[in-house]
Amino acid sequence: MSKKLTKRSEDYSKWYNELVIKADLAENSAVRGMMVIKPYGYAIWEKMQSELDRMFKETGHQNAYFPLFIPKSFFSKEASHVDGFAKECAVVTHYRLKNADDGSGIVVDEKAKLEEELIVRPTSETIIWDTYKRWVQSYRDLPLLINQWANVVRWEMRTRLFLRTAEFLWQEGHTAHATKEEALEEAQKMHEVYTRFAEDFMAIPIIKGAKSENERFAGALETFTIEALMQDGKALQAGTSHFLGQNFAKAFDVKYATKEGGLDYVWATSWGVTTRLIGALIMTHSDDQGLVLPPNLAPYQVVIVPIYKSEEQLKAITERVQAIVVSFREKGIRVKYDDRTTHKPGWKFAEYELKGVPVRLAMGPRDLEQATVEVARRDTLEKQNMNQSEIVTKVSALLEDIQTNLFAKAKNYRDEHITEVDSFEEFKEVLNTKGGFISAHWDGTVETEKRIKELTKATLRCIPLDAKEEEGKCILTGNKSNKRVLFAKAY
Amino acid sequence: MSKKLTKRSEDYSKWYNELVIKADLAENSAVRGMMVIKPYGYAIWEKMQSELDRMFKETGHQNAYFPLFIPKSFFSKEASHVDGFAKECAVVTHYRLKNADDGSGIVVDEKAKLEEELIVRPTSETIIWDTYKRWVQSYRDLPLLINQWANVVRWEMRTRLFLRTAEFLWQEGHTAHATKEEALEEAQKMHEVYTRFAEDFMAIPIIKGAKSENERFAGALETFTIEALMQDGKALQAGTSHFLGQNFAKAFDVKYATKEGGLDYVWATSWGVTTRLIGALIMTHSDDQGLVLPPNLAPYQVVIVPIYKSEEQLKAITERVQAIVVSFREKGIRVKYDDRTTHKPGWKFAEYELKGVPVRLAMGPRDLEQATVEVARRDTLEKQNMNQSEIVTKVSALLEDIQTNLFAKAKNYRDEHITEVDSFEEFKEVLNTKGGFISAHWDGTVETEKRIKELTKATLRCIPLDAKEEEGKCILTGNKSNKRVLFAKAY
Repeated sequence: MSKKLTKRSEDYSKWYNELVIKADLAENSAVRGMMVIKPYGYAIWEKMQSELDRMFKETGHQNAYFPLFIPKSFFSKEASHVDGFAKECAVVTHYRLKNADDGSGIVVDEKAKLEEELIVRPTSETIIWDTYKRWVQSYRDLPLLINQWANVVRWEMRTRLFLRTAEFLWQEGHTAHATKEEALEEAQKMHEVYTRFAEDFMAIPIIKGAKSENERFAGALETFTIEALMQDGKALQAGTSHFLGQNFAKAFDVKYATKEGGLDYVWATSWGVTTRLIGALIMTHSDDQGLVLPPNLAPYQVVIVPIYKSEEQLKAITERVQAIVVSFREKGIRVKYDDRTTHKPGWKFAEYELKGVPVRLAMGPRDLEQATVEVARRDTLEKQNMNQSEIVTKVSALLEDIQTNLFAKAKNYRDEHITEVDSFEEFKEVLNTKGGFISAHWDGTVETEKRIKELTKATLRCIPLDAKEEEGKCILTGNKSNKRVLFAKAY
Repeated sequence: MSKKLTKRSEDYSKWYNELVIKADLAENSAVRGMMVIKPYGYAIWEKMQSELDRMFKETGHQNAYFPLFIPKSFFSKEASHVDGFAKECAVVTHYRLKNADDGSGIVVDEKAKLEEELIVRPTSETIIWDTYKRWVQSYRDLPLLINQWANVVRWEMRTRLFLRTAEFLWQEGHTAHATKEEALEEAQKMHEVYTRFAEDFMAIPIIKGAKSENERFAGALETFTIEALMQDGKALQAGTSHFLGQNFAKAFDVKYATKEGGLDYVWATSWGVTTRLIGALIMTHSDDQGLVLPPNLAPYQVVIVPIYKSEEQLKAITERVQAIVVSFREKGIRVKYDDRTTHKPGWKFAEYELKGVPVRLAMGPRDLEQATVEVARRDTLEKQNMNQSEIVTKVSALLEDIQTNLFAKAKNYRDEHITEVDSFEEFKEVLNTKGGFISAHWDGTVETEKRIKELTKATLRCIPLDAKEEEGKCILTGNKSNKRVLFAKAY
């Protein structure tokens, strides 16, 4: 298979699709819209999971597991939730197959029809709140701080690997609190956890904002979002944290005995990130040569390739490399030594470039003599020689430098692609030429927001939390506005 | 809620059900046969996962993720697999819901009927082998050593928490090899990994054996099993590893170019353990006071409870305890300090006894003066006082001792419950009085095995790998036999 990718400038979408396949991250399966996450892609997800899981536990959360199926009637219980989620779902109607009478294969056994259909969870608020009803009686049971790692299914019509798939993996946090203030604080805390994860691990600069009423999660009073910008100027929602008020507590009748002896509904939050983050990671950092991974999430941070002509040379190199591998591991650096004899060094170089390994070392006979190593960094493609004696210290510093550099580069691009506009003409002009986030005044109504989307395909990404108070006029209606919000075309 | 459990001797089954609920491990959900795994139960599963995952990776395996749904037609491709798995399955027939015309709620949209029904995976051989067809071309692509952590659904009619549920969590390994020998070796290697995990972490003594043809996995040529014995004398299959021959490669047409330039079908294995292991863990070690957890899998190995009358005393105790907590953590001991003021010490003691925390420390004002701590071990319920200065070393040794003791106790019980019998009368007598494994001669036929099951409800658990060659006569038919096999009633 050719390792050459379509250039981003030629066809960004094609570049992305090819990269996901050629870097061995994921592929389509025999089931429409559902992907197979390949070992290399899954290793990135595992790294994400382990960092997020640690952050959740450090903020007091525990994991639990709730059923895959939800009774159909549960979706009708929270009025706005049903419109948002109960539509494009996988529906289980039967529980048995049988051999066809005519011997043609297996068929659904019509006798095994469920009394009530079961929905494969598109999100778990309903089944979880049905459970919380049994878990919460008194203020002593609160707060309830639970997270679930799970698969969910949403029957998307147009799917793309990682970005939009009928099944995806995610985590969903669901918490219950005694007061409104505490629940709001929790939603904000997790918003901040997501921001830290995106910036410090994924090296993706984030705009923290709130969603407009129109873009809120179905059933939420407030949705906090982290918005990222991809290299083609389109925005991507990378994670959301919802303040749900008492909506689900009321829908599922979850009350608690207060300290003062009263009885009140509890307050809720939910928050989630998905395997979509892998799509964001790819589209933020990668280049025409392939994937570029930030060291903090790379399955292998360093790969070492031996260059040799004879068995004897390979043996001598391997011996030297093994000592280096040990010292890397002692430093906590994830390293792989690729001594496969089935592939040539050039093939391996291309392979690891495509797979975005942050640092590649090469060691040949001359390096053995001179006690040097060739070091190539993936982000800038620069090479240099280093002494073997200082390799661990220097590569360790290099990995930090790459992590910092990737973030700085992405932030630079992002900052250059936030454009303030003051008229609708300008809005359309910027959207169709430069792209990126457009900072504009908006009159605060759902109607205007929808009209702008109809006219331009741009959506209101968020109301930035740090937006300045500023008098202005809505770019579409000319009505009053007191702060700028961000629009963009989005994934 | 009363913490008192039904005694095992009174009603073992009732004891188990009560224990799972009262120790906060799991509960039934609103969906028939599907459980909610509560945080404490899930924490045990996470510990199991992390140890197993480490063992899998150390033996060269990588994780990946395959679709939740499998096209119905895939099940017909491997002849024996279809009979074993395609029956009691959840079937997805539609992909959309809509509001009912009469406003009565939401209904299935009949227009959104799938052309081919999708089955919620009961196991993933078929979808994975359909994928391997694309991944395997040459001997260079082999071996393929993949594991998946996932949820699966089997529509069980009679369910019990952890032991048999319609949805359960598991891992399923699926490997592909160039030769028969290598695949067989892999199946045996994972059999050994399961044995080590069961004995060293779960403290459950295991009999390693092979399944008879009748009890083999649907599609396997050989099924290796680890069989455990519960305290009520019933056996439990705790994990299986299958040598699948070329059955799935042939069904899904997975061939590879050999080193010699030929073309051949690959050889396969699959292996799995499930959340059922938590049921085995409970039933092996726990007692009439509640759960007993082996330290190697306990979410908390040590809990510390302060005993105080005044705020001042609590403050002084907390200060002393915090230093101890730090030194425990430095030693890698998982410790919890329960300084909740909402519950009394006696309540906490009962709680942690019920939840099986291996070691419980208590510190009161007198301990502060005398620099002592009260130490209670969960397995024997013995108490002693220790000096604070040696607490970390002594508790560390105590945890090891508890781990060893639990295994020894379980092994002693198990060994006492393997009974050799030489007649069918004796077989029935032992089965109905003493229980446990019955070691008996069997003529090797499926008919005899089935007849014994019909007559006694005992199943052939396994042919132990270390069974001695021994001339004998089948207990039922009197036909020739050359080794003893193990029968038992089983979960």
